[in-house]
Amino acid sequence: MARIVQKYGGTSVGDVERIKNVANRIKAIRDEGNELVVVVSARSGVTNELIARAKAIHPNPPEREMDQLLSIGEQETIALTAMALEAIGVGAVSYTGAQAGIFTDKVHTKAKIKTIDARPIEADLSAGKVIIVAGFQGINEEGHITTLGRGGSDLTAIALAAAVKADKCEIYTDVDGVYTADPRVVKDARKLPEISYDEMLELASLGSKVMQTRSVEFASKYNVIFEVRSSFNNNPGTIVKQEVAYMEKVVVRGVAVDKDQAKVVVSNIADRPGTAAKVFRALADANINVDMIVQNAGQGGVATLTFTVPQTETLKAEKALAPVLKEIGGSITLDDKIAKLSVVGVGMRTHSGVASTLFTALAGADINLELISTSEIKISVVIAKDKADEAARVAHKAFHLDQL
Amino acid sequence: MARIVQKYGGTSVGDVERIKNVANRIKAIRDEGNELVVVVSARSGVTNELIARAKAIHPNPPEREMDQLLSIGEQETIALTAMALEAIGVGAVSYTGAQAGIFTDKVHTKAKIKTIDARPIEADLSAGKVIIVAGFQGINEEGHITTLGRGGSDLTAIALAAAVKADKCEIYTDVDGVYTADPRVVKDARKLPEISYDEMLELASLGSKVMQTRSVEFASKYNVIFEVRSSFNNNPGTIVKQEVAYMEKVVVRGVAVDKDQAKVVVSNIADRPGTAAKVFRALADANINVDMIVQNAGQGGVATLTFTVPQTETLKAEKALAPVLKEIGGSITLDDKIAKLSVVGVGMRTHSGVASTLFTALAGADINLELISTSEIKISVVIAKDKADEAARVAHKAFHLDQL
Repeated sequence: MARIVQKYGGTSVGDVERIKNVANRIKAIRDEGNELVVVVSARSGVTNELIARAKAIHPNPPEREMDQLLSIGEQETIALTAMALEAIGVGAVSYTGAQAGIFTDKVHTKAKIKTIDARPIEADLSAGKVIIVAGFQGINEEGHITTLGRGGSDLTAIALAAAVKADKCEIYTDVDGVYTADPRVVKDARKLPEISYDEMLELASLGSKVMQTRSVEFASKYNVIFEVRSSFNNNPGTIVKQEVAYMEKVVVRGVAVDKDQAKVVVSNIADRPGTAAKVFRALADANINVDMIVQNAGQGGVATLTFTVPQTETLKAEKALAPVLKEIGGSITLDDKIAKLSVVGVGMRTHSGVASTLFTALAGADINLELISTSEIKISVVIAKDKADEAARVAHKAFHLDQL
Repeated sequence: MARIVQKYGGTSVGDVERIKNVANRIKAIRDEGNELVVVVSARSGVTNELIARAKAIHPNPPEREMDQLLSIGEQETIALTAMALEAIGVGAVSYTGAQAGIFTDKVHTKAKIKTIDARPIEADLSAGKVIIVAGFQGINEEGHITTLGRGGSDLTAIALAAAVKADKCEIYTDVDGVYTADPRVVKDARKLPEISYDEMLELASLGSKVMQTRSVEFASKYNVIFEVRSSFNNNPGTIVKQEVAYMEKVVVRGVAVDKDQAKVVVSNIADRPGTAAKVFRALADANINVDMIVQNAGQGGVATLTFTVPQTETLKAEKALAPVLKEIGGSITLDDKIAKLSVVGVGMRTHSGVASTLFTALAGADINLELISTSEIKISVVIAKDKADEAARVAHKAFHLDQL
């Protein structure tokens, strides 16, 4: 007997038939004698419908009310999933975030989990029930409903796995694991049986879209081992954990492409201490996530600062920087025709030559590098967006990721 | 400045445009300097959609999960209504039943309100906010979401009016008041400016469909004066209170018809003490609401027991009685081709001749009486369903209800 936390995403519970399928999956695992805590998302599309309805009423709805509204999506699926289990003879109890004791801070629409009071869940587990928990949502100390932001349901599952000391945590999604590259772009991309938190983190943040960074960070912090797999088949997925068996041998684990970034160039700014600080303080105050940052050495007293931001936030960034530019001088250029390509692998730490292999391969395909940025386990380059897919294939081949 | 509780039904908040209309109404009253607590229902149709989805998963869904599911309907409208107010510059905060401190008993799908902890609402009122509360729902002591059953949103409004000591309680619905008869059937039916709780109770329970009995009972118990009016115009509605001005002069206040009942005849049962008790114990155990009950004097040692139940519960009643009939003998006949017509008025208490006026008028229209039952302030008769509308017109005229 094991205690298992599972999470099913919006497409897995997208309609009545799929909810029944999920119930059958749960029953099969339950019948093997396991204890189950199951986190479900809202039906796919529901959250967007609710957002559209809200926007038709208020261009910029108050965030507390937005959370009050959006949390109903999961509340629907937990009730329906519990009913589907009862219908096939499995005792089940649904829990909203509040009922599950998921306490968060007060930051509406992107709250952080502070503590989980798992006593009610433990009591129902002891009573032999399957627990169905609404993902993505919690409650703050004042009793207001909060939501956890994008990827929040994964976070709920991983946090619950830590809180109830689960033996396993399974994240069911519409992809069946983490690949060496996007299989739609690189046809000989392979599924990875295992990956480390650090590698997964870099892949997640770099646009592999399997999972949000914060869930992986949370799992890493509390050492929650989890498996990413598909709810539409029984294939083994990818297990994410601290250290993976063949870590030493493999230099690069995967190639990720992010087409949702834009490049911002702030040029002709005064080359003196504190200039960059002012720029990034203004962006931070406006809550804009800045990714790659490169500053050229100044010449003739002026410098150029280049960075990338999510495409959706370029106008917000421009607006936030206007008063700063008035103060420090300089001008802004925006470019959203870019993509970021990254190669990731913990093996890089002890291997040299990864950068040169990547740059040589890209140069061979006549792909120009606009920005370069490196960390211990990844190298990222910004290239033209229309060359991104080709670059992924070239890099994948250069690191022999198509070979077992 | 007054403190006003308003309730808007499902058709009043049926879509985005109507929610905006409701917000404008609220703003107008707010701008006059009033404090407002507003109860809203789910958008019309939403509750039925959710029930259909549940039934597609489980023929008889667990009631706790049903409440968990259905409560999202109002949670959507409270958030959207609060957003609509914020959009026109009115500070507003939405409250689920749980957040509003509406504590109920544990009976899922038809919970009773036990207490309301209005402190959070009082605090937000003091801060100048308009309060938007989800109707129909509460929470029990164990943290499970409960719903109050049919007409639950009216009950929420009236209970809140008592809890916050409101000066006024306005129930907005799709009819603009209580009429002397159904205006669709009786063309010269008049709207009543005032009506007493007792009269309203009889009219509600007899099928006038304006409000459920329990809300009126609650209002009567806590002496909450409320007005039933339409959210689609500014006509004055009907004020419901303890004593109405011209009570002494008017004998009959209105005529109500209920076509949703069925007649159950249990014949040839042993005419001895305890027989009827067994029948109604079995029905009560099955949670079936019995309305009119008539027992004929027994002859030859056998008796006939006749009663009415909601049409939807006839099969349930038959099933519940099967074991009893095995014990006490007798057979059952069901008839759903009936209607119940009632005339109601507190003036009846001190006036004789109401029954004879009614029976004479119906006889004059060749309408046969199958059952008769009376209370202090009403007389009800069961007649053939296809004669019901004609009977309503005849009775309305006989008591001069068309005259001011």
